[in-house]
Amino acid sequence: MMRNIKLTVAYDGRAYHGFQRQANAITVQQVLEERLSLIMGHPVTITGAARTDAGVHARGQVVNFHTTGRIPTANIPRAANSLLPDDIAVWAAEEVPRQFHARYDARGKVYEYRVFQGSHKDPFRRRLVWHVPEPLDTAAMTAALALLVGRHDFSAFRAAGGAPVQPVRTLYEAACQRQGELLIFRFAGDGFLYHMVRNIVGTVIEVGRGRLTEEDFRCIFMSRDRTRAGATAPADGLYLMQVWY
Amino acid sequence: MMRNIKLTVAYDGRAYHGFQRQANAITVQQVLEERLSLIMGHPVTITGAARTDAGVHARGQVVNFHTTGRIPTANIPRAANSLLPDDIAVWAAEEVPRQFHARYDARGKVYEYRVFQGSHKDPFRRRLVWHVPEPLDTAAMTAALALLVGRHDFSAFRAAGGAPVQPVRTLYEAACQRQGELLIFRFAGDGFLYHMVRNIVGTVIEVGRGRLTEEDFRCIFMSRDRTRAGATAPADGLYLMQVWY
Repeated sequence: MMRNIKLTVAYDGRAYHGFQRQANAITVQQVLEERLSLIMGHPVTITGAARTDAGVHARGQVVNFHTTGRIPTANIPRAANSLLPDDIAVWAAEEVPRQFHARYDARGKVYEYRVFQGSHKDPFRRRLVWHVPEPLDTAAMTAALALLVGRHDFSAFRAAGGAPVQPVRTLYEAACQRQGELLIFRFAGDGFLYHMVRNIVGTVIEVGRGRLTEEDFRCIFMSRDRTRAGATAPADGLYLMQVWY
Repeated sequence: MMRNIKLTVAYDGRAYHGFQRQANAITVQQVLEERLSLIMGHPVTITGAARTDAGVHARGQVVNFHTTGRIPTANIPRAANSLLPDDIAVWAAEEVPRQFHARYDARGKVYEYRVFQGSHKDPFRRRLVWHVPEPLDTAAMTAALALLVGRHDFSAFRAAGGAPVQPVRTLYEAACQRQGELLIFRFAGDGFLYHMVRNIVGTVIEVGRGRLTEEDFRCIFMSRDRTRAGATAPADGLYLMQVWY
């Protein structure tokens, strides 16, 4: 019998060239497909909700795949985790309707971006955070981020040279919160343009540093001109936290 | 002019065969000495407060070294961190009296041991915790640990086949605390026998699982017989947190 299985997956992205399968580089998709194929007894092709970039992490990526394998759904996480390398884990499995598609059916996603503000680098956070030791004005950044909430044209924060997809997205949340030496940015929306979170963070950090005012930030956002926004923040601090359907 | 410099060092122990220099394996001491030699302009030999084992971590190891190098003490952390790999960091530097010795002068140390209780493995905690998904009775473990506080013969928890050093140590603190899915054991004492923390954790976990009673634990401790205690907990969860003088 053919089943459609939805998995919730976490991975430390440091060792991978992103999620999506590539010819000459190791990716999360490839490793998952290889191990799931062993469990299912036939070649498995997975569809991921988001194509995270090289070095980006996930604590809630969703994938789905069709299988004729006979392992009970509830046993898939344990079986997969016993075969997967320690930097990828399956946290949940459920059977879903046959037509469910992890990417096309996604109604929204949550990303976090982690900035570490310690005065010295932390060996336990290397490539898991963006290290910005300078003081940042959280209140100014919070005010700037609030401008992004709602339905807007996010062209100013799209990837330079990205594909010409329509640039209007709805953000439900755009905020930052201090947790000790960490500054955690959180973005929830119906969809994200390529590099959108990293470009927003790279620009709003300039507000935090006092190099841009909230008004500068607003003008950059309204201009829809990518060349006016700040640099793309590094992949290291980005986490796909949740996908909802 | 000859100075004696004390450094506070943090490292992720996963990539190293422990702290102490060895002939055919990479160690934290070797990497630190190589980089400090470049900064100081002469070969540097460091003395560490504790010889942490392979895979053990530190967030407060202390080392000292003598140098004729001319870099101001306050600039050493930045200079060292720019040359060190990302899994070792110098967090503080200070000049100390010429006769200061990081190991012999240590008056006490604090170790933490981290147990992760999540139902599935966490890619961001691999080899940074001991994964014990079964429920553990924190109250029973707390009661057993309290028996260890004070001045006692810790032979029951020394390494099997270890060198015959005197086995009496004073523990000021032996406790465990839940933080979400983490269980954090904390031990402060004037000194620790080889593998002592890992042997205590390996045994008290059996109390947490209900396989040993508090009275069993007390008898094992009083017997001074290593063969009666539990297995040595893995190196992964152990952190040297602080050394005091």
